[in-house]
Amino acid sequence: MLDQSAVDRVFHALGDPTRRAIVEQLCRGPKSARDLAAPLEITLAAVVQHLQRLEESGLIRTTKVGRVRTCEIEPAGLQVAQRWIAERRSLWERRLDRLGAVLKAPRK
Amino acid sequence: MLDQSAVDRVFHALGDPTRRAIVEQLCRGPKSARDLAAPLEITLAAVVQHLQRLEESGLIRTTKVGRVRTCEIEPAGLQVAQRWIAERRSLWERRLDRLGAVLKAPRK
Repeated sequence: MLDQSAVDRVFHALGDPTRRAIVEQLCRGPKSARDLAAPLEITLAAVVQHLQRLEESGLIRTTKVGRVRTCEIEPAGLQVAQRWIAERRSLWERRLDRLGAVLKAPRK
Repeated sequence: MLDQSAVDRVFHALGDPTRRAIVEQLCRGPKSARDLAAPLEITLAAVVQHLQRLEESGLIRTTKVGRVRTCEIEPAGLQVAQRWIAERRSLWERRLDRLGAVLKAPRK
């Protein structure tokens, strides 16, 4: 079973297009907050806020060495979202299978 | 390639816990707005608003017969989210594979 509050945090984090763009960037490799800010055309302060949300949700992790904070993807976070969706789809597919079985059953 | 605005709509819709609870309910079978409202302990008006958002995002479809609107899951919607995540994970895995290849290569 998935932890409900982890699911809430991950989907809330992924609900924002800028945060999804950051996840996308980090899937290509680790980056500093400054490197992430440039292509997104938003301020460093705004990026830092999004990074905090992403780190709290477990989608990324950050490490600070000297004055530079490096961000990287935390694959377990995306897996939470993937599992939630897969479980919902399997609920729906099992229901279709049951319906199919009922329709195929010989009428008495 | 996924349609970016479809991705935006689906993740925005799934970012809300009540809308995810509705998706969960509908994966178990079609329901009316009234039947969805009862276990969620929210007003019918609030459910109707969430249903509109979910329908716009392609996660559900609704049909009105007489005075009753019935909602059901639209599997293509969840598939958009699933594909977005799978593509991000594959970006990240390809990167790990390249890193692994570099580390395994004989030093010259």
